[in-house]
Amino acid sequence: MTASDSPASPSEQPTPAAVLQSTPHPYYNQAVHGPYQLANIGDFVTESGATLRSTQLAYVTHGTLNPGRTNAVLMTTWYSGTSKIMEQIFVGPGRALDPEKYFIVIVNQLASGLGTSPHNTPLPWDGPNFPQLSIADDVRAQHTLLTEHLGITQLALVVGGSMGAQQTYEWAVRYPDMVKRAAPIAGFARNTDHDRFYGESLMQAVKSDPGYAGGRYKDLCEVEDGMRRHVGIWAYMGLCPEFYRRQLWKPLGFASATDFVNGFVAALFLQMDPGDLMCKASKWQRGDVSLQTGGDLGAALGRVKARVFVMPISTDQFFPVEDCRLEQQLIAGSELRVIESNWGHFGLFAVEPEYNEQIDRHLNELLALEV
Amino acid sequence: MTASDSPASPSEQPTPAAVLQSTPHPYYNQAVHGPYQLANIGDFVTESGATLRSTQLAYVTHGTLNPGRTNAVLMTTWYSGTSKIMEQIFVGPGRALDPEKYFIVIVNQLASGLGTSPHNTPLPWDGPNFPQLSIADDVRAQHTLLTEHLGITQLALVVGGSMGAQQTYEWAVRYPDMVKRAAPIAGFARNTDHDRFYGESLMQAVKSDPGYAGGRYKDLCEVEDGMRRHVGIWAYMGLCPEFYRRQLWKPLGFASATDFVNGFVAALFLQMDPGDLMCKASKWQRGDVSLQTGGDLGAALGRVKARVFVMPISTDQFFPVEDCRLEQQLIAGSELRVIESNWGHFGLFAVEPEYNEQIDRHLNELLALEV
Repeated sequence: MTASDSPASPSEQPTPAAVLQSTPHPYYNQAVHGPYQLANIGDFVTESGATLRSTQLAYVTHGTLNPGRTNAVLMTTWYSGTSKIMEQIFVGPGRALDPEKYFIVIVNQLASGLGTSPHNTPLPWDGPNFPQLSIADDVRAQHTLLTEHLGITQLALVVGGSMGAQQTYEWAVRYPDMVKRAAPIAGFARNTDHDRFYGESLMQAVKSDPGYAGGRYKDLCEVEDGMRRHVGIWAYMGLCPEFYRRQLWKPLGFASATDFVNGFVAALFLQMDPGDLMCKASKWQRGDVSLQTGGDLGAALGRVKARVFVMPISTDQFFPVEDCRLEQQLIAGSELRVIESNWGHFGLFAVEPEYNEQIDRHLNELLALEV
Repeated sequence: MTASDSPASPSEQPTPAAVLQSTPHPYYNQAVHGPYQLANIGDFVTESGATLRSTQLAYVTHGTLNPGRTNAVLMTTWYSGTSKIMEQIFVGPGRALDPEKYFIVIVNQLASGLGTSPHNTPLPWDGPNFPQLSIADDVRAQHTLLTEHLGITQLALVVGGSMGAQQTYEWAVRYPDMVKRAAPIAGFARNTDHDRFYGESLMQAVKSDPGYAGGRYKDLCEVEDGMRRHVGIWAYMGLCPEFYRRQLWKPLGFASATDFVNGFVAALFLQMDPGDLMCKASKWQRGDVSLQTGGDLGAALGRVKARVFVMPISTDQFFPVEDCRLEQQLIAGSELRVIESNWGHFGLFAVEPEYNEQIDRHLNELLALEV
């Protein structure tokens, strides 16, 4: 080998994270998901024992905090969702989450791509070296944001779907005096074995791609095979038999089920950073409020003081109604409100005309309850 | 590179199939699955246009064909199942499939590992070069075996689960005058998009393993990562939320759900040949009796003259009751008989004490019907 064809020495090679940070991300940016704000909550120590310096939370607010500070609503985000998606689906005049009435704060979870995430974190926690996070980490970080940056002392409602439901449960158990009402939609307080195996399978689909290289990929294209396998699993677990039986892709203008999977599911996920997704999937898998009570789920949910509506989706393949009901029954004064949908877990995307009406009806009832 | 460290020239290297054929297979053999017989049905032309020379079908018989030849029962096999498994689950004195009353023929499907399969087929159709097969190929091959080798002219019953149900439907549509009764258990006449995506995901899990090498692996260990991902998907789709919720792995002596997946699901699949499984998965994906009628499922199922009991499993994640019901409603005089189980699709393994009683009750009723 001659000097002329030698690769750059290690010190000259940019780290993967540096490559990713060197240009604006084509998906995680203000143009696609903004406007959002960034709050620096300082040095954040994760449950896994890492110190993330100058941790940034990306968030948006709608409406105004009233003088009594009684109208704050926290909305959390799901695996594929950002504050922009939540805003589009849940927030608006005349909706249950009406900015005329509530001060609505939507906080993007850590590793969401907006705010501190594997893909945009510098050494020594860059990309593949990013620490393992937990749902509790998200909730602790959000608590800092709400109490120290936004002056919020109580929450009229915490609401979120899927991983957002995990955060909602965690909030109600961890800060019971602060959370007055909670609406976990399509998610668990403690993950099941069934769902854990599903999450593991999603992670293996990506991580097994040689291009993933333990998170050291330099371009999304290098992980496309793995990401397409990840999409392929969502195709049957994120949707459901009912969706395909009724050909509900047709009203969206797709020519076939395969066309839908490529044009909707792949189009959604292939824009995202694989390492960010893997960090989130790991959180999702291990979500468990009973870690606060030595594994006793009843004791954990017994701490909840909020009025809770547990809102599973009728056709959800991995957060099925029955598992949600068993958790709901452990929460005093709670109610089970099943959301009817033929879209499976992806009912969350609110494509069905009947979806938002159901969500708003239940949230309006919950918000009307005296606490 | 010197001559001394050069690899063997191509002509000196054994083909993968030759390696696999050079020693008895540790799983696909008479000791594990026997005794079974092999019938040579001659040169078999697949629907994909390949001629498989001296095609071997592995089968077993129980009981005796009566003089009127009216008591023959055909049992087909599923993805992971061989004739031995079917025998253990379905056949016995006092059972619906009683060898004292019926001449029961269990035929292992092509690519099952027993009989002609990718792993044991010589050049030019060895291993990765094995032709694409279809459910119709299986049924045509079985028809040759039954009519030309075993002297069977009519079938009192065709019964099978999962891929065996696909073959059962294909039999009833393709040879309506020969099939008097049919019991497809936990399977479709025409595969759904939902199930097709599931099958695709299973295949991708294995084929994406660099060790699979397009089917040119020389040892099962080389594909273990992919096979474990394949197992990981079965863990949540083959079983179901109910199974894990009720911790039904406990009565089997496992310490945890993960222990069960490794000790039961992985233990089952990791013995099998990946290429054989991929060939079967491809058949499963494309199973569709309406290919006989230009895509018209009603027309295909309208050809059926058999009395049919459609027997879905209540918790099946990929052959759900509702999809089975829609097919059943297209078959004149048929009935829907739902098998109650908390094991999902793996209810087929008949681990639950209530399972065989249900199967036998329905099959006894079906066999008692005049035709």
